[in-house]
Amino acid sequence: MEQVLGAAMGSSRAFENLRTLTDTVGPRLAGSPGDRAAVAWALETLTALGFSRVRAEKVAVPHWERGEESGALVHPTLQPLALTALGSSVPTPEAGLEAEVVEADSLEAVDALGEKARGKIVLLWKLTERARDGAGYGKTVALRVSGASRAAKVGAIGVLVRSVSTADTRLPHTGDMHYEEGAPKIPGAALSTPDADLLHRLLQSGVTPRVRFRLSCRTLPDAESANVIGEIRGREKPDEIVVLGAHLDSWDLGTGAVDDGAGCVTMIEAARIIGAMTRRPRRTLRVVLYANEENGARGAKAYVIAHEKELGLHVAALEADSGAGPAYGFTYSTGPGSGGRLQEIAALLAGIGAGELKDGGNGGTDIAPLRAAGVPLFGVRQDASKYFDVHHSADDTLDKVDRRDLDSGVALAAVLAYALADLPEPLARIAPEAKAP
Amino acid sequence: MEQVLGAAMGSSRAFENLRTLTDTVGPRLAGSPGDRAAVAWALETLTALGFSRVRAEKVAVPHWERGEESGALVHPTLQPLALTALGSSVPTPEAGLEAEVVEADSLEAVDALGEKARGKIVLLWKLTERARDGAGYGKTVALRVSGASRAAKVGAIGVLVRSVSTADTRLPHTGDMHYEEGAPKIPGAALSTPDADLLHRLLQSGVTPRVRFRLSCRTLPDAESANVIGEIRGREKPDEIVVLGAHLDSWDLGTGAVDDGAGCVTMIEAARIIGAMTRRPRRTLRVVLYANEENGARGAKAYVIAHEKELGLHVAALEADSGAGPAYGFTYSTGPGSGGRLQEIAALLAGIGAGELKDGGNGGTDIAPLRAAGVPLFGVRQDASKYFDVHHSADDTLDKVDRRDLDSGVALAAVLAYALADLPEPLARIAPEAKAP
Repeated sequence: MEQVLGAAMGSSRAFENLRTLTDTVGPRLAGSPGDRAAVAWALETLTALGFSRVRAEKVAVPHWERGEESGALVHPTLQPLALTALGSSVPTPEAGLEAEVVEADSLEAVDALGEKARGKIVLLWKLTERARDGAGYGKTVALRVSGASRAAKVGAIGVLVRSVSTADTRLPHTGDMHYEEGAPKIPGAALSTPDADLLHRLLQSGVTPRVRFRLSCRTLPDAESANVIGEIRGREKPDEIVVLGAHLDSWDLGTGAVDDGAGCVTMIEAARIIGAMTRRPRRTLRVVLYANEENGARGAKAYVIAHEKELGLHVAALEADSGAGPAYGFTYSTGPGSGGRLQEIAALLAGIGAGELKDGGNGGTDIAPLRAAGVPLFGVRQDASKYFDVHHSADDTLDKVDRRDLDSGVALAAVLAYALADLPEPLARIAPEAKAP
Repeated sequence: MEQVLGAAMGSSRAFENLRTLTDTVGPRLAGSPGDRAAVAWALETLTALGFSRVRAEKVAVPHWERGEESGALVHPTLQPLALTALGSSVPTPEAGLEAEVVEADSLEAVDALGEKARGKIVLLWKLTERARDGAGYGKTVALRVSGASRAAKVGAIGVLVRSVSTADTRLPHTGDMHYEEGAPKIPGAALSTPDADLLHRLLQSGVTPRVRFRLSCRTLPDAESANVIGEIRGREKPDEIVVLGAHLDSWDLGTGAVDDGAGCVTMIEAARIIGAMTRRPRRTLRVVLYANEENGARGAKAYVIAHEKELGLHVAALEADSGAGPAYGFTYSTGPGSGGRLQEIAALLAGIGAGELKDGGNGGTDIAPLRAAGVPLFGVRQDASKYFDVHHSADDTLDKVDRRDLDSGVALAAVLAYALADLPEPLARIAPEAKAP
């Protein structure tokens, strides 16, 4: 394990791989030209690094395009608003929407607006807390995901959500939304936090702002993308598999350096380092770079269907999708009796400050569907204090990634993956009735 | 002075005034509707606060409009570039410009490109250092101001300057540029620092990026704006004047909260506090909110012409145009023998950490023309470490201003203004032959 740690912390290629992904591919929303270029990049990269059985497994993905968008405060004064469509939103009418703004800070508060929302634009205004474990996101994101349909039910014509972000820059943060069956589909956009706070201040001061915005986003027929896979064959039990997952797609506004380019290059590099060792682990490491995590998780769903027959041979799955901050530990969901083994692994990681264990969770969106087959699930934990400054925004770019922090994730993933793949006996599987916490 | 400090630090109205300026007026580039609204705001605010002789003195200002703009990297991959036209730039052709990129890190390096620049877009790439006194700006800004004409002389068709900024956000920072007589006029834009660094990395890795950009900015006939003035009459020598200057205009991308809304409300509040005291200073305080500092300084020029006959009665001028950070001292340029008096004033300010003196400078762009008339010049110094994170960008908004920091500037300005206006004898004037350092 010293060898693994040394390679990860000293001569990692993760950052250089991230550079080529972000600089020469860039944004890669499902179905876009960048998505196709990313699949080509991944195939080329895994092949060049000597992975086995490199292949692209086709996935049909949603194809939503942003188009052009703009917004402005028109009363009490005219000033531009920095906003961006939420993923899956319908467009506004060609000429845009214009209306007075009413505010709500929860879905229940949206319901309670009642008639006050009719014909209005609802501002969904809630602060996102900064936290190492990213917990602020979970407390706020429901407004983004469900706010439009809730507001439509009380007669609103559009929603503007304060970006689910800890940043104070004038860049809006997108993210997926869902329409409820039966509710009118109204357009939804995210405002940058300063722009949302401007509207909030005006309302607080007794001035009703009037806002205009225009979105030309559209949903096209499903497009073709792929899960890209490469393997490091196990020395004793090559048919038994440890999945190292991350997602290859990104939102379109930035270059997805942090979300989830960092996870992709972390898993690629962790596996490469193990593959370069004289003594490989007993089982096979399978790097899976999933399609379409951001707006559909079709890659995750396609994987379990395509690999249904071998899920019983999946002994563990590990995901990296919590940014590029310093690694500090991992989550686990397994059958009973794994604690001792995992404590031993955590002890190996304590030296780099990455030994914190947390029982629970699904490891991440892409490996979560493996739970039904009982596969033990692990999630790389990285300090997410700054993650939501850039997440889903134009600011998700390479310069936000610190090379040493990135390598700490590589070290964590490599040690954990090696240990899981080399156990004399696999960990106990999750019982079928066990629910995600 | 205790009373002045107490009022400034305890019950200042500066932030609330800044809120109404930024929230209800917003961006106010010379000649724009926001510029006119700002003049109205200033007249109303000074009147409401009880200033004497409140008036707008007409100034003809340049009228440059940004229009629409866009840019993209087109090779080695297609990805959007965050850019914005430099003030005074000519537009690109209607269809935009597209060319390979060559790089230079100084004006001399631009000259040295020679034939390599012909038909190309020149990337002007230089880092801006973070510094308390903002010195990094001065070391870099020449590329923005003069780069286009220098590049045009070696045959370039456009320039893209790395924003003169310490930020790492995907927001470009504009600022004025000048065309040299005789050089072809080519368009100039600023790239956000991450976008400039993307092009730089590609060049470093041996890939020649190809870029497309389009600017539709235009220069219209001069427009009407105004210097807005209000006074606190002196108790003994009301005809003798201490100018408290800041500029009312801002760039169009943000709301000019920091540059220079903060300076305006600082000067207004410093003078208001003094006006509310039982014992006013001997001389008159004249708040001058200048027009068009950002792209022409026409307000500064107009002031000295309009007030030519009373410049001899101007005993001092003080300017606040270095952001909204914690105040730490002031610069001064006077005739000989003022040191002792100024040390006494600085001693009063030491208690709030604002007692640092620096000999030299013009106090600021707007009061600099008073030097020719010998007027002693003072500049409020505020910690500018974060100033160039937001300066001239969409990020210059109210949320970037800390109320306590803002009030520290009010305290500094109030103490200094009171002291200068209440001296038994005015400070020695600057000798006619003295040059600005």
